[in-house]
Amino acid sequence: MTFDLKSHLAAQAGRIETALTSLLKETERDGEISRPERLINAMRHGALNGGKRLRPVLVMDAAGLFGRADDGVVQAGCALELIHCYSLVHDDLPAMDDDDLRRGQPTVHKAYDDATAILAGDALLTLAFDVITDEAVHPEAGIRLRLCRELARASGIGGMAGGQMLDLESEHRDRSEAEIRHLQSMKTGALLRYACRAGAILGDASDADVERLTRFGEIIGLAFQLADDLLDVEASPEAMGKATGKDAEAGKATLVGLMGIDRTRAELQALLEEAHDLMAPYGSKAAALNALADYVVTRSN
Amino acid sequence: MTFDLKSHLAAQAGRIETALTSLLKETERDGEISRPERLINAMRHGALNGGKRLRPVLVMDAAGLFGRADDGVVQAGCALELIHCYSLVHDDLPAMDDDDLRRGQPTVHKAYDDATAILAGDALLTLAFDVITDEAVHPEAGIRLRLCRELARASGIGGMAGGQMLDLESEHRDRSEAEIRHLQSMKTGALLRYACRAGAILGDASDADVERLTRFGEIIGLAFQLADDLLDVEASPEAMGKATGKDAEAGKATLVGLMGIDRTRAELQALLEEAHDLMAPYGSKAAALNALADYVVTRSN
Repeated sequence: MTFDLKSHLAAQAGRIETALTSLLKETERDGEISRPERLINAMRHGALNGGKRLRPVLVMDAAGLFGRADDGVVQAGCALELIHCYSLVHDDLPAMDDDDLRRGQPTVHKAYDDATAILAGDALLTLAFDVITDEAVHPEAGIRLRLCRELARASGIGGMAGGQMLDLESEHRDRSEAEIRHLQSMKTGALLRYACRAGAILGDASDADVERLTRFGEIIGLAFQLADDLLDVEASPEAMGKATGKDAEAGKATLVGLMGIDRTRAELQALLEEAHDLMAPYGSKAAALNALADYVVTRSN
Repeated sequence: MTFDLKSHLAAQAGRIETALTSLLKETERDGEISRPERLINAMRHGALNGGKRLRPVLVMDAAGLFGRADDGVVQAGCALELIHCYSLVHDDLPAMDDDDLRRGQPTVHKAYDDATAILAGDALLTLAFDVITDEAVHPEAGIRLRLCRELARASGIGGMAGGQMLDLESEHRDRSEAEIRHLQSMKTGALLRYACRAGAILGDASDADVERLTRFGEIIGLAFQLADDLLDVEASPEAMGKATGKDAEAGKATLVGLMGIDRTRAELQALLEEAHDLMAPYGSKAAALNALADYVVTRSN
């Protein structure tokens, strides 16, 4: 029996989509004064755009390994996805990567303007820390606080935002393989690591299981980045729904550039095997996470 | 005996400065991978710049009313100040207010570049939600969560960020007095309201006292904005350390513009009286908050 990843992803992403849509309603939540129309529309443009929802699906599937599948897990996934979406809105700005298209649609600053995109990103980021404190996320306040704090550390200067800074500094500058691995562990690795780790914490997993899922998340992060670099070299803009070849154009060193395509493919295969080994103790309960690892390595967009 | 506000402000702001400096060290915190040098320097530039620290001082003095003066209150104040500082870094960007000077110094995007300023703001915002979860803030996890969530709602689309959006939309557009009051309650009011309210919550104040301090914070917000509008009309750029007359130049309607200087001054006086009335039950313990209310109304920069 093979696992039907496509149906699984559609179902999990559907739950995320429903929850995000509800979080991004026009009407204000308790304690909010109002939700200005232009800003909530820009936030919706940035967050409800048919993304694959990989990060929240990882949260849900990691929690599922430990028996949790309720809507509180979806809320935690949404918090993480809001962080991811804000980072895309800001990364696309002219002052940053200057991208006009994202998943085949105009980026937020193209559909609105730069100021609105800056504010929409800020507000999506802020909303994440509202959502992660939701009572449904976990009955224990201490666990919700831990998830909140770890989310901040994975997203901020010591994680994603710091990695973005290092990446911008990489333009037209030589980077060693170690430097690139370091910046990627921050820029893309930290959130994917958090996704799997948070899922285990949500499921009240043992410390050993939390560490196991943390390592699984690190592998997903490494594999995701290597696969992304390969796609940037090999795929067409049409398949990706955004510009490709951007790294080479920006003069950014990549692991694929330093290691070559064959060594990159070999490392991806080794990562995939380690991922499967890590999931072995969970047997068939890990079918979704195993299939996601395969997907991250073999995806074509 | 008159209250020595100048010494008081210097002492309270000094505690905030020390704590912020510690939060913005070059070395990473637990769970952070590294703190890239350029980004932490830009964050320090945006946050350690001799600000008056009005918001955190309000947190500390409101908590002081209920007997709390420990470093946990300073941490909570820092979280709020990090939000305020991020908003200034982003507001100064060319795509927003396009300001070159802030407190007489180059703004972050002038000292670094636009991309770094965007990331520095993002990282300051994110750090705020790490800091507010600090165990020292309050022994009860549930209270820390409440403070975290209320901070998110005061700062995000339903508060400060939303108000900033409405303010940008006000350029070259007529606004009624009610519309301006609404946007100001979001843009500047929400954080000042939060400051006083959070202080009461930190001090385990009764619900009635929390509501009293919340109203006090609303008055501070209204008075702060009216005084700011008056300064924008009347003060010199030298006294303010930044450009003045910007509202008129941007074609933004202000309350002073609609109400005239005399009616504005009269409203300020009435607000001040209400503030003092609210503090009356606390007697001499409210000396600092009473003096702060006076200061907000009479400040010259």
